[in-house]
Amino acid sequence: MSLRIIATGGTFDKHYDPLTGQLVFGDSVIPSALACARLTQPCQFEALMAIDSLDMQDAHRQQILAACQRSEEARIVIVHGTDTMRETAALLGQAQLNKTIVLTGAMVPYRIDGSDAQFNLGFACAAAFLSEAGVYIAMNAQVFPWHAVHKNRSAGIFEAD
Amino acid sequence: MSLRIIATGGTFDKHYDPLTGQLVFGDSVIPSALACARLTQPCQFEALMAIDSLDMQDAHRQQILAACQRSEEARIVIVHGTDTMRETAALLGQAQLNKTIVLTGAMVPYRIDGSDAQFNLGFACAAAFLSEAGVYIAMNAQVFPWHAVHKNRSAGIFEAD
Amino acid sequence: MSLRIIATGGTFDKHYDPLTGQLVFGDSVIPSALACARLTQPCQFEALMAIDSLDMQDAHRQQILAACQRSEEARIVIVHGTDTMRETAALLGQAQLNKTIVLTGAMVPYRIDGSDAQFNLGFACAAAFLSEAGVYIAMNAQVFPWHAVHKNRSAGIFEAD
Amino acid sequence: MSLRIIATGGTFDKHYDPLTGQLVFGDSVIPSALACARLTQPCQFEALMAIDSLDMQDAHRQQILAACQRSEEARIVIVHGTDTMRETAALLGQAQLNKTIVLTGAMVPYRIDGSDAQFNLGFACAAAFLSEAGVYIAMNAQVFPWHAVHKNRSAGIFEAD
Repeated sequence: MSLRIIATGGTFDKHYDPLTGQLVFGDSVIPSALACARLTQPCQFEALMAIDSLDMQDAHRQQILAACQRSEEARIVIVHGTDTMRETAALLGQAQLNKTIVLTGAMVPYRIDGSDAQFNLGFACAAAFLSEAGVYIAMNAQVFPWHAVHKNRSAGIFEAD
Repeated sequence: MSLRIIATGGTFDKHYDPLTGQLVFGDSVIPSALACARLTQPCQFEALMAIDSLDMQDAHRQQILAACQRSEEARIVIVHGTDTMRETAALLGQAQLNKTIVLTGAMVPYRIDGSDAQFNLGFACAAAFLSEAGVYIAMNAQVFPWHAVHKNRSAGIFEAD
Repeated sequence: MSLRIIATGGTFDKHYDPLTGQLVFGDSVIPSALACARLTQPCQFEALMAIDSLDMQDAHRQQILAACQRSEEARIVIVHGTDTMRETAALLGQAQLNKTIVLTGAMVPYRIDGSDAQFNLGFACAAAFLSEAGVYIAMNAQVFPWHAVHKNRSAGIFEAD
Repeated sequence: MSLRIIATGGTFDKHYDPLTGQLVFGDSVIPSALACARLTQPCQFEALMAIDSLDMQDAHRQQILAACQRSEEARIVIVHGTDTMRETAALLGQAQLNKTIVLTGAMVPYRIDGSDAQFNLGFACAAAFLSEAGVYIAMNAQVFPWHAVHKNRSAGIFEAD
């Protein structure tokens, strides 16, 4: 069973910039995360964009939709910022692509101690392999259908509506 | 949906002993791994044993079976050494417990750079939530039924029979 | 030979806050860094303040000076933000305390991959043990006298004047 | 001031081999450690050998001595296994090279959580820059002259004789 993993940025993929003291984007960490994971099935990685999900515009979401449409793999994991993950999931869900699409992200960047990134990536890959066609958000060790989840920002967790 | 995670030892949970230079067992790393993962559903952790799977005897496997039988949670992840994971999975599979039991482990200890432990734990948790009752091995980002998998030791990967 | 280590904050000690996505201060990482270092000589750790060095006012620097004055240990390492490390070093240098005081910090926080924090802490401790009384900045694997160093902000390094 | 860093192996530089479950040698981690450290002075790295110090024979120590003799840098850090660090230090000390040579190592490999490697490397570099010509062992945040130190193996620390 083959898988496509699409990077869009978000906390998962943030790097620390020593010159500015800010968390910024650079090369995606996902190839390194996947190397650790020791996958044996075909997996296509696509670095589509690298932005904070608060900065995502409609045009960005259309790009993500187009990437899912053209994907030859029917199972897709999208690494995305958490703040507007639900909005992107909704656009993809309404498009009814007949693919299994799982959005995930992280509350702590991959490169920072105590990150949830690697756990979430593993969780999302299994959800992509095992779920029927549809669009899902996989965070906090739960798989949520796209239309019934929101981020509780004060608690920093995803909850069922 | 609630989950039980049972530690039995294996590479996943090995620590470095500075006095002997050996990899040994100590307190399980799994509570720390789960803290990173930011679970929001009930999850019971059980440190059942801490041994190398090459040292596992029938009595140990019977203990693992008993732990699964008495588990109030119908979804169970077992962290286990990879070398005899298949043997333990077979015992559990033949017992037909009507629970979803997923065995996972790691090729590189959790505490060593480049580990697959956190990815595998996330992958196994999703497999436990999403698979029907049965016994599975989740390694290399694949979910294998217990009766159709083996470890290819020279390649260090799990493969379908 | 006994040593005092004084935490004042700075990049070295920053934590990631998952709720705001910002790097902030919490409990100092220095006790954990020192536990790794396996010191066998007496070492007093003092968490004096936890601020960004750009936010340091005269009152803060006076507090640091007072901490050095009252220190029973004649060898002191101060972990400090890099941006105004030189200003604090100047105040301490002009006070002529007859102690060996070494300021250090980090360009990448201790808890982020690729940090210079642990190297710098080791370097600064050796500089504190081996240098004669005076005030020094130890960064980029160099020991600079307080009056002849500046931070080149565009390059992110300390240089001799 | 320029520095030479010579790798000889030891715990500092051990990697985990997923196929055998053993700690073994591969490419040295020291270039990566130095990249983190953000050195601005000239530093030559030399991967001389990669062995456990318990496996060191006279011929190996002669190779280390020869490397120190031919070094154009008068300040040298040698990363070495701890078990026979003292024996190598004695050979170098007796050779009276008129260089500052500091041996260091680690009780926990660089690539394992909680390692003292990066701290020790920083400490040893400062000791190499600040000490007069001679041969020293830098471990446990102390600088010991070569002829007055031993490893207390049951405690896992270096102590003055």
